[in-house]
Amino acid sequence: MVKRYLSVISLDDALSLLSREFSCIPSSVPVPLEGVCGRITSGPIFARYSVPEIHLAAMDGIAVRSRETIGASEQHPLTLSKTARVNTGNVVPPEYDAVIMIEDVWEADGIYTIRKSAAPWQHVRPAGEDLAESEMVMPSSHRIRAHEIGALATYGITHPEVITVRVGLVPTGSELVLAGTRPAPGQVVESNTVMAKAMLNEAGATCTRYPVVEDKPEKIRDAIANAVRENDIVIVSAGSSAGTKDYTADVIAELGEVLVHGVAIKPGKPVIIGRIDKKPVIGLPGYPLSALTVLREIVLPFLRNYGLFIPEPGCIRAQITTAVAKEIGSDEFVLCTLGKVGSRWVVSPQSKGAGVQMSGVRANAYIRVPKASEGFDAGGEVDARLMVPASEAANALLITGSHDPVIDYLADLIRPQGITLLSTHAGSMGGILALKKDECHAAPTHLLADDGSYNTAYLEKYLPGTDLDLVCIAERQQGIVSRDGLSFRDLANHTFINRQRGSGTRMLFDYELKKARIDPTLIPGYEREVTTHIAVALAVKSGEADAGMCVFSAAKALGLPFVPVAQERYELAFRKEHADDPRLSALITAIRSPAFREILNRLGGYETAETGQQRAVR
Amino acid sequence: MVKRYLSVISLDDALSLLSREFSCIPSSVPVPLEGVCGRITSGPIFARYSVPEIHLAAMDGIAVRSRETIGASEQHPLTLSKTARVNTGNVVPPEYDAVIMIEDVWEADGIYTIRKSAAPWQHVRPAGEDLAESEMVMPSSHRIRAHEIGALATYGITHPEVITVRVGLVPTGSELVLAGTRPAPGQVVESNTVMAKAMLNEAGATCTRYPVVEDKPEKIRDAIANAVRENDIVIVSAGSSAGTKDYTADVIAELGEVLVHGVAIKPGKPVIIGRIDKKPVIGLPGYPLSALTVLREIVLPFLRNYGLFIPEPGCIRAQITTAVAKEIGSDEFVLCTLGKVGSRWVVSPQSKGAGVQMSGVRANAYIRVPKASEGFDAGGEVDARLMVPASEAANALLITGSHDPVIDYLADLIRPQGITLLSTHAGSMGGILALKKDECHAAPTHLLADDGSYNTAYLEKYLPGTDLDLVCIAERQQGIVSRDGLSFRDLANHTFINRQRGSGTRMLFDYELKKARIDPTLIPGYEREVTTHIAVALAVKSGEADAGMCVFSAAKALGLPFVPVAQERYELAFRKEHADDPRLSALITAIRSPAFREILNRLGGYETAETGQQRAVR
Repeated sequence: MVKRYLSVISLDDALSLLSREFSCIPSSVPVPLEGVCGRITSGPIFARYSVPEIHLAAMDGIAVRSRETIGASEQHPLTLSKTARVNTGNVVPPEYDAVIMIEDVWEADGIYTIRKSAAPWQHVRPAGEDLAESEMVMPSSHRIRAHEIGALATYGITHPEVITVRVGLVPTGSELVLAGTRPAPGQVVESNTVMAKAMLNEAGATCTRYPVVEDKPEKIRDAIANAVRENDIVIVSAGSSAGTKDYTADVIAELGEVLVHGVAIKPGKPVIIGRIDKKPVIGLPGYPLSALTVLREIVLPFLRNYGLFIPEPGCIRAQITTAVAKEIGSDEFVLCTLGKVGSRWVVSPQSKGAGVQMSGVRANAYIRVPKASEGFDAGGEVDARLMVPASEAANALLITGSHDPVIDYLADLIRPQGITLLSTHAGSMGGILALKKDECHAAPTHLLADDGSYNTAYLEKYLPGTDLDLVCIAERQQGIVSRDGLSFRDLANHTFINRQRGSGTRMLFDYELKKARIDPTLIPGYEREVTTHIAVALAVKSGEADAGMCVFSAAKALGLPFVPVAQERYELAFRKEHADDPRLSALITAIRSPAFREILNRLGGYETAETGQQRAVR
Repeated sequence: MVKRYLSVISLDDALSLLSREFSCIPSSVPVPLEGVCGRITSGPIFARYSVPEIHLAAMDGIAVRSRETIGASEQHPLTLSKTARVNTGNVVPPEYDAVIMIEDVWEADGIYTIRKSAAPWQHVRPAGEDLAESEMVMPSSHRIRAHEIGALATYGITHPEVITVRVGLVPTGSELVLAGTRPAPGQVVESNTVMAKAMLNEAGATCTRYPVVEDKPEKIRDAIANAVRENDIVIVSAGSSAGTKDYTADVIAELGEVLVHGVAIKPGKPVIIGRIDKKPVIGLPGYPLSALTVLREIVLPFLRNYGLFIPEPGCIRAQITTAVAKEIGSDEFVLCTLGKVGSRWVVSPQSKGAGVQMSGVRANAYIRVPKASEGFDAGGEVDARLMVPASEAANALLITGSHDPVIDYLADLIRPQGITLLSTHAGSMGGILALKKDECHAAPTHLLADDGSYNTAYLEKYLPGTDLDLVCIAERQQGIVSRDGLSFRDLANHTFINRQRGSGTRMLFDYELKKARIDPTLIPGYEREVTTHIAVALAVKSGEADAGMCVFSAAKALGLPFVPVAQERYELAFRKEHADDPRLSALITAIRSPAFREILNRLGGYETAETGQQRAVR
């Protein structure tokens, strides 16, 4: 039986349905002060006693009777017969009604002299000044801030009652292993409920992760029934799609009812909303970025109905660098990198693969393409929703072009300075086009011209009349990676894995083929393209191909033989107008640092003689 | 011996000195994924293996050999001899190179028919697509976000190494009791290290609170020496001032050296910066708001040197409602309430008492008055630094005027709607003046005119020609509170505690005195003023005065006799132009709700017949 989704409903309708169908009454728990920061009060909190309960000295000094101080002046110092030495916070004995600061008294043998009279009740903290017994300290639905926890202690509250929503997380899937176990081929680390727990705990929910349930309907049924008993909301990870082992919807239908199967969002469509014993049961799609989207766009907003504090993401209007096309009818969420080039905010959509968890790590923003929209044109203004504080996004350094692992090491070198290097892997030509449109701070590039020179010819051609600078990152070896030490000459007899058109490595390979007068169509696998050095090496290691061309570091990382073909100049190109940008300066300083040179030597495959050399274009 | 501060230095100099004198090398600890949200990586994190390690199906469907699908079309369906049924995430067996979605195949008896050819590698997730073994997942100094914790699990990382700074918190003071113990007269609940722990933990430090140390130099010495051994930073709470029992500076000098005693900030001046065994030891002032200021302005910024993430507070330009005067030379920090009246942000300084912890609870912002400034004039523009999210400040409802405990209950009723009622206790006249300057949303007032009418006469006089509305909160009893059931007629023979000039209660009291032809100077204590009903009742309960005038609820809360004098109309005044403000509408709805009527009846001392009645002025 091939299963199909029930009729898919819109995101807005799904959220309304959740609000309409469930009463959303949170639990209240007393939580010790240690753990109460960020939690929401479930009722008003009252002071247990007055603070202070009795008059206290507000300064270090002496307690006096104010009427006895009348007439004291510089000309007529007054010696007081009856005083009491008090420190800040000491009880002012009932016979006194004022405190004189210790700086304003002269003492000899326990007798105090003053040169100024004291007003009644000066420097005295009257009883109840701070708060009186039974007064309200904070109302319900108040989010407790760190500095308020001291105040709660002062007012006698040690276990404030706060809102909680118990969420049961049920991971299902026979292919799942727990974090810490290396997955065998076809196995996957169970990460969705790990992520869900972190996200929902941060929102003030109390999550219980249950053991992984294998793909057997009766086991899934028992696990869900148990989780429903013990929680206010149950989230079942995966099995929500239409595969042969997707039992979640059937099990929910058996135990209760399925209200929704499929919401028109991307990623995240195969979501289930069900009800068992009046409680919401949500089936999360399996792909991590789909699960992330459903958690962020459906589950977290729904938790607001329980009174939890779910902040709206900050939003920045930014120019989008590449078009986003989509069909009308579903809300689409795209992870992005956001930064400020000159005075302009620019936002670049990341790769769309829902299985690529790294996009979530690399992204600092996301955009929502509304369901009625066909997408955005490149260059238009969009709302970028922040996944980091705005100040961090403002310090992002946008690098677009040919990616090499050493870029990650440079990111690591400058990150402690508060600069986030965000790298868009677009290949050398992609970088040059981004530079042309002034949509990145710098572009790492290694483009070989017919005359054997690197980069300058392309920059002059594509950015004529633009003042540019180039800083050499390294001269790096490109060569043939294989399992058996194959060289360039052996390619015709073995399957090859190629880099994508437009990448510098591909251009170099085509150049070398031409130089050697080899017809590309004679190389088996020439048409199979991947987008990174490491993907080439992996394809070779996994046996999918016998050889490919990549940089040495990729071959070395996977322990594969490497036979050099050519050395290329891997340079960072940028507009002179941005040369003084502190983020770019920090990057160039890092390129020239001894620490980076050491990294290049350690990784191998790089010549460092030219590293840090700068030259101008035009 | 009277102690004096060492020469006081500026806040900026104190921060520079901390950066200059200490090397600030953080510790690194492996933390399990459960606790890693918000922590900062102490080094780059690398993938332990590739993800995926082998080609996987990216869709539910059938794995095929793409070359065998060539030619399939609607007109020429193709039946495939060799296929494998795969679900999303399954391994694609090596003999296949593409996946066709289940929606695009027709199945009968395990034989599949297709109507479209498959491109090579379609719907296949290639090995290493997400990340390859040894690639960098995140750089150092990266703040781990909740959604990234799933990614870490996927890449084989279960205990990422993160930055930590071990902070030892040493509370000192013989007057201190632990939270949960009701303090005897002169005792205080130890709350500074409770607050410090919450604030510093939130910033990613690892705090240890040590037991309370009594005021004995040798015990303080042992406690500090021990804390220095076990931590990177030590914070000693209190004993930093110039009282007779302030030993902290002496002990630090004995164990190491005192670098600074006294920083020119207010509140917070008596702070100590010392060094023992190369480690910073900070002496915190005892007053909670002084301690809060030192933690926020000195300790947290200093933690940035260790690589911890300390966000800058958000900032909003706002018009200040009352002048802040200060002497040149010290940076002054003032807690405020911030909100938006119409389209204008306004910010009102709170009471300055450093011992009033409630100001920290009531404030949603603070302002810094720089050391070179003499203060701010009322009506000027200042930077308000946020203590809540900007969206929460935008939803603040600013109520200025005569405070009654029922205002707190109204705050509690509307808080679940996301509206924060911030009440400035300024007395009825203060509220009318705030209304005149349009600096609050509404003013609770109970001002009696000579003709016996309430509120309208004053509003017409002070806001002539302004369209205003009044909504009755309740008619409430004002009366004499005493320990012995005294009445208005008994006052001349007993000590009295008065309300401040300008408050409605004071006006009513003066009116009643005049009506009864009693000379105020004959009432002992007439000149002694406090600013709230409950403070009047407390003064009576503590024996400081024999009688005072207040509302019934205050007498009842403290279990004191109450003899009614008059009934007054406690009304909410507001400009008609704000009547449609959703925050104000919510408040009026709450005043008219059965829940509020029930609260009034339960508290006692209120007539509810007029509650919710609205009338216009002019």
